[in-house]
Amino acid sequence: MRNLDEQTITQAVLTRNAGTENQRLHEIMTSLVQHLHAFARETNLTEEEWEKGIEFLTAIGHITTDKRQEFILLSDTLGLSTLVIAQNHKKPEGCTEATVFGPFHVANAPRYDLGEDISGGLPGVPWFVKGTVTAKDGTPIPNATIEVWQADDAGFYDVQKPGLEDYHGRAIIQADANGHYHFRTIVPECYPIPHDGPVGKMLEALNRHPWRPAHLHFMITAPGYQRLVTHVFREGGDYLDSDAVFGVRSSLIADWVRHESGIDPYGNSIGSLYYTLDFNFILHNA
Amino acid sequence: MRNLDEQTITQAVLTRNAGTENQRLHEIMTSLVQHLHAFARETNLTEEEWEKGIEFLTAIGHITTDKRQEFILLSDTLGLSTLVIAQNHKKPEGCTEATVFGPFHVANAPRYDLGEDISGGLPGVPWFVKGTVTAKDGTPIPNATIEVWQADDAGFYDVQKPGLEDYHGRAIIQADANGHYHFRTIVPECYPIPHDGPVGKMLEALNRHPWRPAHLHFMITAPGYQRLVTHVFREGGDYLDSDAVFGVRSSLIADWVRHESGIDPYGNSIGSLYYTLDFNFILHNA
Ligand SMILES: [Fe+2]
Ligand SMILES: [Fe+2]
Repeated sequence: MRNLDEQTITQAVLTRNAGTENQRLHEIMTSLVQHLHAFARETNLTEEEWEKGIEFLTAIGHITTDKRQEFILLSDTLGLSTLVIAQNHKKPEGCTEATVFGPFHVANAPRYDLGEDISGGLPGVPWFVKGTVTAKDGTPIPNATIEVWQADDAGFYDVQKPGLEDYHGRAIIQADANGHYHFRTIVPECYPIPHDGPVGKMLEALNRHPWRPAHLHFMITAPGYQRLVTHVFREGGDYLDSDAVFGVRSSLIADWVRHESGIDPYGNSIGSLYYTLDFNFILHNA
Repeated sequence: MRNLDEQTITQAVLTRNAGTENQRLHEIMTSLVQHLHAFARETNLTEEEWEKGIEFLTAIGHITTDKRQEFILLSDTLGLSTLVIAQNHKKPEGCTEATVFGPFHVANAPRYDLGEDISGGLPGVPWFVKGTVTAKDGTPIPNATIEVWQADDAGFYDVQKPGLEDYHGRAIIQADANGHYHFRTIVPECYPIPHDGPVGKMLEALNRHPWRPAHLHFMITAPGYQRLVTHVFREGGDYLDSDAVFGVRSSLIADWVRHESGIDPYGNSIGSLYYTLDFNFILHNA
């Protein structure tokens, strides 16, 4: 312990941690220390680089608030979020795939009835979304709770707009007894993840863009089933092959059907452009 | 890119980073992503554990200020600081070893002349420190700049004391033309690293104590030589074998000689307990 060098330090730390009572924590810390040290040795990290790392993490901590989670952005852009989600949701073939949670979910979204406009009055191209929530064998799951959240037609979430008090483009709805859900909103656009902070600087240094393809977030819960957190992406949209946070899955890309005008799904005549989406979710047993 | 799983995500991130122009950054990020992902796979990290990790880093960011650097504490307690210092200071046999910088250095410490009391009037047991700064071949290095900082006799640094405006126990002095330095201060005590924050909670969960053995910090610079950042530890003191930040080196442990009373090194009669330390520093060529 009195003559540590860059090789022996690793075992010294593991020995020091050996008294950890929580066995899972012990396992995690052992792996963390080994990989952290291996990283520093492999790169022959200099003191100046270490200092830059400390400054980078400090800046991420300082920009993080209850409305902006820059550490999640970091995890997302380094692919860690996708990795963790993938290894925790190895579902049987046929169940809807999960994807990244993202930093824009907030608690206590407003509740809406089926068929209501959940955009909160946002301007944009009308979008009629519907589908069914079923089990793997096709049985409808009654009354699932469906939380949706989305960007607006300029690519911004409500929480990104300074001074905005009300929620826009986020809702909690409940599917009916037959597993059907439907609501009205506006078409969300592609957006860049917040890139005016340390993670944006990192992406710039890595010569990467901060854009995400257009998508609608879903979180679906029902008793007896695993919670599903996912997106539905827009077929043919930009950035599907270069999502800044590695969230795209083929099975989650759907046709957002364009209609020049006509009769909307609620039987009303609509004289301008609108879109429809029909997407079914298949939940995995808990 | 549209069908990533916990295995393929790693290559996807590396491919996305492939356009990085700064080759060193590219090297560092490649290693970082690989080890970060390997850690998550090896531990089969759950979403809940990932969330706790995000919360832990956020808490570290939020407690960090210009006076408290919790990320450095984290690096220190995980042995990363010692590793980075060791691999960047592989010095020829005979040169004084470096050790961790620690979080208590501050810029613009007051300047003192040789022989002055650098404690800033702190109460405590008087301590007379002296030595020589030389090159490896024994040649004295004239006029080296020596910065020292230390805890007080209760184990606190000045910056930890709320409301304290002046510096105490930190100084910049200059060795003389023959490489000699000498000053007066008080004996610093063992102290726990700040453990009322997230890193303290981590140490508790790991069943580790936060204590450091008693030491005096030195940073020595001289034209033509590598900057030396190190400590001098107290022979026979507590925690030498369990320093919370893995900073102890055998070669840096010295006899802090106890004197019941007598004539101090400046020729003055001293009627009570005092200590002396004689420590020579050998710098490595730049
Ligand atoms: Fe999103
Ligand atoms: Fe210290």
